[in-house]
This record gives sequence, structure tokens and C-alpha cells, in this order.
Amino acid sequence: GTKEHAMYGLIGKFTAAEGQRDALMGYLVEGSQNMPGNQSYVVAADAGDEVTIWVTEVWDSPESHMASLKLETVQAAIAKARPLIAGMERVAETAVAGMV
Amino acid sequence: GTKEHAMYGLIGKFTAAEGQRDALMGYLVEGSQNMPGNQSYVVAADAGDEVTIWVTEVWDSPESHMASLKLETVQAAIAKARPLIAGMERVAETAVAGMV
Repeated sequence: GTKEHAMYGLIGKFTAAEGQRDALMGYLVEGSQNMPGNQSYVVAADAGDEVTIWVTEVWDSPESHMASLKLETVQAAIAKARPLIAGMERVAETAVAGMV
Repeated sequence: GTKEHAMYGLIGKFTAAEGQRDALMGYLVEGSQNMPGNQSYVVAADAGDEVTIWVTEVWDSPESHMASLKLETVQAAIAKARPLIAGMERVAETAVAGMV
């Protein structure tokens, strides 16, 4: 089966309030710098519409991800981002098999 | 709007043939090494079932991604992987706003 201590992945989808996708992506990128245990954090606009944002993350462990939510930088970004978020959905939690 | 020459992202979902997820992930990781223009390639098992694989990619351009499909290493991996693939779905094509 999957290696026990595989890295932890997350795939999430945000729906931005109308006209706010770029601003919201900016806050997500801003808040995702220098998070201990984070191996990858990609913020991207769906090419098929004007409101969908995909966030794909890789962490060394689920614990590192949880801890990041308490970081001051992350909390500040979440506070700024929240008014621009019309919807949020966790698409997948994963065990990472390999990464380039 | 999104920067014109933003990096190009892809989110895809594979369904492995029963019992073949680990083998299939191995081929996907094997084939994804040293692809010109590739900035990120993550292969991960969905934690919620035994067959779903998520592949999230970042390329410097759509052209680099297209060119990679002709690489000998990628074609060899695809040939080995194909019998283990029960389903494939492109979930999203994206313009990357930021990446850590």
C-alpha cells in the first residue's frame, strides 16, 4: 500500500466573490510563504471561468498543515481573504507517492 | 486579470485498475522525471479510496506540457501505465498565480 509516512497532500477549490479572484489569489499566495513543513503550495485560476481558484498543497505531515493555520501570517491572510470568498470545498486529501 | 504569461497548471484524476494503484503511481512518477519546462509534478493517492490518483502539474507553458508527451521517457511510462488505468479525467486547466 501507500508508504506509511508519505507526505500529506491537499486539493481545495475556492469560489471568489465576483470580480475578486485576483485579489483573493494574492492573499492566498501572500499567506502561504515560509510555512514550516510545507513542501509545495500552488494557487491557480481555473482557465474555464472567472471565479474558481485551485489550491494544491504538499506538507511533510498533516500536523504541519494543522499547525500552519495558527501562524500569524496565515491568520492575517485568512482575515483579509474571508470577505472575498463566496465558497470553499476540500476536493481531496492525499498521500503523496512522488513529487518532482 | 491573470498575468498573461502565468505558468500553466493541470489537475488530473486517474482511476487505477483494482489493486494496481501503487504500480500505476510508480510509472507516473518514473515518467515525470527531467521533463523540460516542468516546474512541479505531484502524484498522490486519494486518502478516501483504493483506486483514485491525483496528478497536479505546473509547467512554464502549455507548449512545454505538450512537448513532454513526445519524450521517450514519458512515452515509455505511458505504455507501461496504460493497462493499469481504468479511467482518466482532466479536472482543471489553470493559470498559476503563485507557487511556493
